[in-house]
Amino acid sequence: MRERKGRPFPPRRDGGKPRFESGKDGRTGFRKGNRDFGRPRRGDGDGPVVIYGWHAGKAALGNPARRIRRILATENAARRLTEENVRAKVTPEVVRPEAIARLLSADAVHNGLWIEAEPLDAPDIEDLPSEGVVLVLDQITDPHNVGAILRSAAAFGVKALITTARHSPEATGVLAKSASGALEYVPMVTVQNLARGLAALKDHAFLTVGLDSEGESDLAALPLSAPLALVLGAEGKGLRQLTRDTCDHVARLDLPGEIKSLNVSNAAALSLYIATTRLR
Amino acid sequence: MRERKGRPFPPRRDGGKPRFESGKDGRTGFRKGNRDFGRPRRGDGDGPVVIYGWHAGKAALGNPARRIRRILATENAARRLTEENVRAKVTPEVVRPEAIARLLSADAVHNGLWIEAEPLDAPDIEDLPSEGVVLVLDQITDPHNVGAILRSAAAFGVKALITTARHSPEATGVLAKSASGALEYVPMVTVQNLARGLAALKDHAFLTVGLDSEGESDLAALPLSAPLALVLGAEGKGLRQLTRDTCDHVARLDLPGEIKSLNVSNAAALSLYIATTRLR
Repeated sequence: MRERKGRPFPPRRDGGKPRFESGKDGRTGFRKGNRDFGRPRRGDGDGPVVIYGWHAGKAALGNPARRIRRILATENAARRLTEENVRAKVTPEVVRPEAIARLLSADAVHNGLWIEAEPLDAPDIEDLPSEGVVLVLDQITDPHNVGAILRSAAAFGVKALITTARHSPEATGVLAKSASGALEYVPMVTVQNLARGLAALKDHAFLTVGLDSEGESDLAALPLSAPLALVLGAEGKGLRQLTRDTCDHVARLDLPGEIKSLNVSNAAALSLYIATTRLR
Repeated sequence: MRERKGRPFPPRRDGGKPRFESGKDGRTGFRKGNRDFGRPRRGDGDGPVVIYGWHAGKAALGNPARRIRRILATENAARRLTEENVRAKVTPEVVRPEAIARLLSADAVHNGLWIEAEPLDAPDIEDLPSEGVVLVLDQITDPHNVGAILRSAAAFGVKALITTARHSPEATGVLAKSASGALEYVPMVTVQNLARGLAALKDHAFLTVGLDSEGESDLAALPLSAPLALVLGAEGKGLRQLTRDTCDHVARLDLPGEIKSLNVSNAAALSLYIATTRLR
């Protein structure tokens, strides 16, 4: 198994329309592709992605693997890019803030920077390093939550984020903004069938641990080993039965207070802290 | 100092319009009051609050201190309330889902339950127990983040959430939904001036620890003692200088990956885990 260290993953070379539905609620549509398990995304017909906001935009421009199509920047943002030595291969079009705001929902904070780019290529599970921690998301649909999870994943040095092709938000728009640049650091693997994805991880020596409030033992007390896959379910629904059955263990996070569950991105951050601290 | 255990806090008896601005982005307005430091909210003229969603609504109806004005419920939600033995003093008006949806933004998930209620009374800092952990928020404005923080606060048995009267979202609408019922468990204290609020906490034996990426030491390595106040700043801006200067210590969360900061609600959950685990 070949080891890849962080970026770069080669960009996709397909064309198409921007993968961003600028709905009034600021959320993107869901990936609707029906691709085979584990295949890279290249050539599946999906269009470019939209990345806005300072941290997300700057990280995208600083990623040599990210192919940029177009940059809109306010005068201030363009100056700041120059000052911070961010060299883009595409010259920013200097526009007024309203020109960017018009492309986004009313509550979107764009910091004067809007980028249209190619999606990054997605590795196969077989391409992942057999070390460290990966995160697996079982149909978490909210792009704010998945973005925040991606950001925490980058903060804890996670090797990949694995999501299902269906019922997962696309790596664009609100997700990219919430990820605050993490999209450039954490490879995203898309699988058609999560149980088969988990089986592939196990074949590659990963210990697979699902998180669920009804889990058999506290994550902080469960014997852990690397490589480790932590599996999180959607709020309310939790892990699907087949996902739960496929995991080596199902663990809970013991909480001392009156509410017994956390927002899923908070649960992800806490699980990553516990796991990475214990594996160190 | 009198000790209060969780709820109930008496409800406010003032009237007024619902404290909920149903903007198209699903966010509420900000508290605009200019009340004195530490005074309870009773009689300040603010109106009732809106609580929607199953968990938030059920918790409100189950809180004897929460005075309910009106309940809208779909047939399903009304049946579920009966099945789960939730006895409200106000009879729910059974409505079609669209009647509730019309009151909220397009992306709001209301689960067929919408409640108009009195705000809970807010204790003074002097009323807080001198034990355990409190959270202090320095002008965190996003109601999703503050709601998620409140939920984590309830999960970790936090004794109170202290916010500034200005530049904080109101305890209604999106915040209440994101808090998932935690509004009924964690007393919210509003102060006019945060530095004076921190001084009052210190007078009551609290160790005050600010969280900042430039902190002097890792929170996991800092000597901690109860009662403890953890102070979090807004994303991007962080702690204000005066807040930082007023804290006994400023600590950081050491993160091993390429991104060195977390979403603020994730940082709150992690800080609470580290602090409560170490103080146990």
